[in-house]
Amino acid sequence: MRPRAIVFDAYGTLFDVRAVVLEGIFPIDPDHDTLLQLWRQRQLEYTWLLSLMDRYEDFWNVTQSALQSSCRQLHIELSASQCNALLRAYLSLPIFPEVASALESLKRYPLAILSNGSPHMLSAAVGSSGLDSRITEVISVDTAKVYKPSPRAYALGVAALGLAAEDMLFVSSNWWDVWGAKTFGYRVCWCNRSGEAMECAPDFEVTSLDQIARRLTG
Amino acid sequence: MRPRAIVFDAYGTLFDVRAVVLEGIFPIDPDHDTLLQLWRQRQLEYTWLLSLMDRYEDFWNVTQSALQSSCRQLHIELSASQCNALLRAYLSLPIFPEVASALESLKRYPLAILSNGSPHMLSAAVGSSGLDSRITEVISVDTAKVYKPSPRAYALGVAALGLAAEDMLFVSSNWWDVWGAKTFGYRVCWCNRSGEAMECAPDFEVTSLDQIARRLTG
Repeated sequence: MRPRAIVFDAYGTLFDVRAVVLEGIFPIDPDHDTLLQLWRQRQLEYTWLLSLMDRYEDFWNVTQSALQSSCRQLHIELSASQCNALLRAYLSLPIFPEVASALESLKRYPLAILSNGSPHMLSAAVGSSGLDSRITEVISVDTAKVYKPSPRAYALGVAALGLAAEDMLFVSSNWWDVWGAKTFGYRVCWCNRSGEAMECAPDFEVTSLDQIARRLTG
Repeated sequence: MRPRAIVFDAYGTLFDVRAVVLEGIFPIDPDHDTLLQLWRQRQLEYTWLLSLMDRYEDFWNVTQSALQSSCRQLHIELSASQCNALLRAYLSLPIFPEVASALESLKRYPLAILSNGSPHMLSAAVGSSGLDSRITEVISVDTAKVYKPSPRAYALGVAALGLAAEDMLFVSSNWWDVWGAKTFGYRVCWCNRSGEAMECAPDFEVTSLDQIARRLTG
């Protein structure tokens, strides 16, 4: 059964968080790969921990705090301008290579984004990548002041699109987001780019976003 | 000002989760160290994610699911008996070398444990380590059906000991637990065994539990 709309996660699903940062700002070396991994991990951990503590700080602040503590942890000293350059990379992230053609092949569906990103971060990244012509709704968890996988975050997609969760397809590359969206009630496609394992079974799994259109018509 | 009671985290603070598993069950090799790290990370992630999704599974089930998905992720095949042996290690974990003398030096205070562990896991580990003669209250988050750092989990210490959070000292080696306890309102000591970095400032920091008594009298 075809969904009535498709809702995408942003970071790691449409936008390649790891590629951009390595290009241009830092030369590629093992330290910086370690930094990128720890930064992303802390960023996610901070969203979960803050939400569990009933606290909220927007994703820009979380991303900045995570970068700072990762640098301290790894004894990497960055100047204020290097820190700012890394943070600002979130405003113009590259999309994965197949994203434009994948969205073209899905243009019969209303396409939305539901992301942890703050409204400012999302509007900058969506605009700079040219996705604004394809995406009809950009939904930030900032409205609910709680991060995924809280049901209050996923409920924003239902409210914004006016559709039941089970009538929409939620697409994410993040295993924990797939688990959360499935638990909430969406139909879920896991774009499992790196062959990860997890507990929850999505409705279907792809390795690249351009496989979705065929799965929906097949 | 001296606290009226001291509340300890269990895993990673009193009990050495990583030492036991490497001894006896597996020979030490890089794969198994990677497995231990991923297992612990997934175990924590599952507690946070389940809590955020308003779901609860007890810590035994979480620990088992985390082990299984970590093995799948790393393409490590364990027999059912090897899996069971790893899980059962949680029932008789070794304590860190300084724990017995540290608790002896703190015996003037009521000493409690507040842990994510299920009641069965905690009573087995506390009994097998001989800590039951020192610890007057063993509190499991299982009563609240939500994991740390939810305030509902930390509130169990207040209820069990009948003291205000700010009149107690909460001791943990886990940075996210230090952050959660401090946010809840406890006075907090971070036993930072491995020189980690984080955002939140504890009331004081030690590198080993036997430094606490002196800090309280000094």
